[in-house]
Amino acid sequence: MAKNLEEKLKAAGNTVDMMRNSQIGAYVYPVVAPEFTNWRDEQRAWRDTCVLFDQSHHMVNLFVRGKDAVKLLSYLSTNSFKNFTIDKAKQFAPVTPYGHVIGDGILFYLAENELVYVGRNPAANWIEFHAKTGGYDVETQYDDRSPSRPMGKPVTRSFYRYQIQGPNAQDVIKKLTGGTFPDIKFFNMGYVTMAGRKIRALRHGMAGAPGLEIWGPYEEGDEVRNAILEAGKDFGIVPVGSRAYATNTLESGWIPSPVPAIYTGDKLKAYREWLPATSYEAVAGLGGSFVSKNIEDYYTSPYELGYNTFTKFDHDFIGSDALKAMEGKNNRKKVTFAWDNDDVNRINASMFAPAGENYKFIDLPLSNYASSSYDTIMAKGGKMVGASMFSGYSFNERKMLSLGWVEEEFAKPGTELTLVWGEENGGTKKTTVERHKQTEIKVVVGPTPYAAEVREGYEGKWRHQAA
Amino acid sequence: MAKNLEEKLKAAGNTVDMMRNSQIGAYVYPVVAPEFTNWRDEQRAWRDTCVLFDQSHHMVNLFVRGKDAVKLLSYLSTNSFKNFTIDKAKQFAPVTPYGHVIGDGILFYLAENELVYVGRNPAANWIEFHAKTGGYDVETQYDDRSPSRPMGKPVTRSFYRYQIQGPNAQDVIKKLTGGTFPDIKFFNMGYVTMAGRKIRALRHGMAGAPGLEIWGPYEEGDEVRNAILEAGKDFGIVPVGSRAYATNTLESGWIPSPVPAIYTGDKLKAYREWLPATSYEAVAGLGGSFVSKNIEDYYTSPYELGYNTFTKFDHDFIGSDALKAMEGKNNRKKVTFAWDNDDVNRINASMFAPAGENYKFIDLPLSNYASSSYDTIMAKGGKMVGASMFSGYSFNERKMLSLGWVEEEFAKPGTELTLVWGEENGGTKKTTVERHKQTEIKVVVGPTPYAAEVREGYEGKWRHQAA
Repeated sequence: MAKNLEEKLKAAGNTVDMMRNSQIGAYVYPVVAPEFTNWRDEQRAWRDTCVLFDQSHHMVNLFVRGKDAVKLLSYLSTNSFKNFTIDKAKQFAPVTPYGHVIGDGILFYLAENELVYVGRNPAANWIEFHAKTGGYDVETQYDDRSPSRPMGKPVTRSFYRYQIQGPNAQDVIKKLTGGTFPDIKFFNMGYVTMAGRKIRALRHGMAGAPGLEIWGPYEEGDEVRNAILEAGKDFGIVPVGSRAYATNTLESGWIPSPVPAIYTGDKLKAYREWLPATSYEAVAGLGGSFVSKNIEDYYTSPYELGYNTFTKFDHDFIGSDALKAMEGKNNRKKVTFAWDNDDVNRINASMFAPAGENYKFIDLPLSNYASSSYDTIMAKGGKMVGASMFSGYSFNERKMLSLGWVEEEFAKPGTELTLVWGEENGGTKKTTVERHKQTEIKVVVGPTPYAAEVREGYEGKWRHQAA
Repeated sequence: MAKNLEEKLKAAGNTVDMMRNSQIGAYVYPVVAPEFTNWRDEQRAWRDTCVLFDQSHHMVNLFVRGKDAVKLLSYLSTNSFKNFTIDKAKQFAPVTPYGHVIGDGILFYLAENELVYVGRNPAANWIEFHAKTGGYDVETQYDDRSPSRPMGKPVTRSFYRYQIQGPNAQDVIKKLTGGTFPDIKFFNMGYVTMAGRKIRALRHGMAGAPGLEIWGPYEEGDEVRNAILEAGKDFGIVPVGSRAYATNTLESGWIPSPVPAIYTGDKLKAYREWLPATSYEAVAGLGGSFVSKNIEDYYTSPYELGYNTFTKFDHDFIGSDALKAMEGKNNRKKVTFAWDNDDVNRINASMFAPAGENYKFIDLPLSNYASSSYDTIMAKGGKMVGASMFSGYSFNERKMLSLGWVEEEFAKPGTELTLVWGEENGGTKKTTVERHKQTEIKVVVGPTPYAAEVREGYEGKWRHQAA
C-alpha cells in the first residue's frame, strides 16, 4: 500500500485517471441537516431577509502559534502582510513555487503570534507541512473537518462557527446585542455580547448588507444558535441546511474548489512524500467533461480565480518569481456562466429517456459531483476557451449558474459560449456518476458576482437571437 | 399550552388547517447518509444487483411482552391471528372503531408472550394506549425513531435493522453464511450465522427475488454492515442512502403514510386525551392539493390501502363491525399513477420562471413535502375520483410515480386522469412549501406493484392519443 501521495501517484500511473475515478464520493457538507425548511426558501432568505449559516463542520481550523507564525504565513501568502495586524482577517491563497494555486481560505489574526486558517484541507496541509519541516518556531493544531457520513456517531469540533447574513442581519444582531451593531470594519474582528456571552466576531457581509461571522467553544454552539434563531424570528431568519449552503457562492462569485496544484514538479516532491496516502489531495475526486492526460492542465493561477488583485510583491513568498513572470501574460478571467434554460430543461427531460439516453443528472441546488469540477467551455467551432468549476441553481436568480474562467477575449458579459456537460464514454467510475451521455449547454458569460441586471440585460438578447 | 392532542385540536379550531400548516418540516429518513454513491445507482441496484437497506433509524420498535400480548394485538388487528405463531411476521394495520386505518407496520412474533411492532408512530401509539389503559397484563417498551436532525449528537437505538435485497441478495447471503441460503419461508423468521454471529432474520424479498431482513444489538451494527458490504462486493452491492430509500415503495406499492384516522369521533376522545401534544399525530404535516374542512375526508379504510384482502372476521377486533358494514360498499382501489413526462418537464422548467410563476418544486427522487400527502385525482370534467398519497421518481422505471386510490370504475390500467399538483393560493404555511402556483399533471392508472410492461403497454397508447 502506498504510504504517501507520491507513492500513490506512482502506483496509479496517471494522476488525472486516478482523480477522475476516485471512489471517495461527493464532496459533502457534513453534519448540518440537508434542509431545515426547504432549500428554495433558504436561498431566498439570504437575499430577502436573514439567514444563519452553520459553518461549524465543513472546514478545517488550523491554528498556528509561536513567534514565527507571521513569518511562516507571510512566506506562504501572495498578499501583503504589511497592514495585517491582530483583529484583522484576510483571504489566504497560497501558490506553489510554479505560481499555481494550492487552495484558499480565511486567515484570522487572533492574537500576538497566533493565527488560524479556516478553509478546505489543501491550504491547511501546505501550512502544516512548512510548519513541521521548515525550521519555524511554531506549533500547529489541526482541527480537521467533520466526517462526511457520521451515521449517528457523535461529532465534535473545537469551535462552532456561524454567520448571520442577509438584509435583516443588522436588525437581528442589534436585537441580540441589546441595541448596537458592533463598530467593526469589514474583515476586522471584535467582540459582541450575545446570549450572555462575549463572543468573537468577524465583520462580514453579503451583497452589501452587513453581517457577522462568530465563533466560540463548540459546546456553547447550541445555546448561541438558539439565541440567534429566537432573536431572528421577527426578521425572517432561517437556518440554512447543507443542500443550499454551498450555493451561496454562485451569487457571490468565490470558487471554493480548485484542484490543488501540487501533483507535479520536483520542487513539490518532498511535499508529496509528506502528504499521507489518505490526505484530501490523495483521495479527492475530479469531475467534469474536460479530459487531459496532464493534471497540470487543471491547475489554476491567481488570475483565473481573481486573486491577482491582492498579490503583492512587497514580501518574499513561495511562488513570487513565478507570479512575476506571469504578469501581463495571463489572459484568463474569472466569470459566471448563466446556463441556457432550454438546454437544462432538455437534460432534465432525459431522466425519462431509456437507459443510456439520459444525460448526467443535474442535482439541485448543488450540481457538482466531485471534490473539484472542471467542465470544458468552448467557443464557436469547438475551441476550448475556459472551464466551469462550480455549478448549481439559484432560486434568487431563477437560473443555473456556474463559476469558472474564460480567456479574456471571451470574458465580456453577454458572450455566448458552450459548456460540455457530463463525462465521456458513459462516464468515469466515480461513485457519483451514473451511466449517461455527454451533451452541450449554451451559456452566457456574466460577471462575478453575478447580478440579475446583467442577466436580464444580456440574456434577453441571447434568448431572442436563439429563438 | 395544550397538554394533549384533544386540547391542541380544540385550540387549533380546524384540524385540517392545523395539519396543512404544520411547522414540523419534511418527514425525514434520519441518520443514514443522504447518498453513499448516488441515488440513481442506488435505485438501480435493487432492481439489477443488490442493496443494503439500513432501516435502523426511521421506525419505532414497540415491544409488547406479557401473557396478554397476543390477546391485545389480536384485538387491535384486522387480520387473523389463527396461524400466527412464534417466528412468523405479519403486516399490522389497526383501524378505529369507525373502520378507518390508523397506521401500519410489521408485527414480529418473537417468542412466547413477546411481539414487536416496527413501523411509523401512529400504530405504535395506538398499541401503547391500549396496553396502558385497557387492563391487559402486558408491558411495553417504546423505542422511538431517531431524531430527524441529530446535527452531530450521538444517536443510538436498541437494534440495528438491515435488509439485503435484490436479484443478487441470495448470493451475498450465501457468501456471508458460508454457502447456504436459510430455509425460511416468506415472512417467517429464523437464524443465520454471519460475521461470526447468530443473527435473527426475517425472510423477505423484492420483486420476486429472495432477501432477508436482519437485526441485532445496535452496537454490533457496524460490524455486521461491514461484513455485508465486504461479502457483497463481487455482487454489486451498494448501501442505499436516505434520499433513495423510501422510493423503493413506489415500485413495490405500499403506501407508508395514511393520515391516522383518530382526530374525530367520541369513541376516540379518550385516545386523543392520552396522546401528548407533541405526538406524531399532533405535529404531523399534511401536504397536497386536496382541501376539505373535514379531516375525515382524508381518512382511508383498508380498501383504499389494499388491506381488505387480509381482513378476517374470525376474531373480535376494534372496528370489525364498521368494516363488516363497509363490505360490498367501498369502491376505492389502490393503484399506481404514472405521471405524464411532458407535464413534469413543464413543472421543472418553471424553476426558471419569475417568482410567483413557479410550480411546486418536484424534489427528486422523493417528492412528498409533508408527513402525509393527499393530492386530488380528477376525472375529465373535474370530478374528484381519487387521491395521490406518496410520490417520487424511479430511475428503474424512468418515471414519476405515485401511489394512491381511485374509484373502481377508474382503476383500470390505462385510465387517463389528472393529478392536481401543488397547493392553493400560493401554498400553505408548511416550512417545506415555497410560494408557487398550482397546476395539473396528466396521469395514467397502473396496478400496484407497478410494472414496466404495464407502462409500456398502456402508456404508449396514451402518449399516442395525446400527441
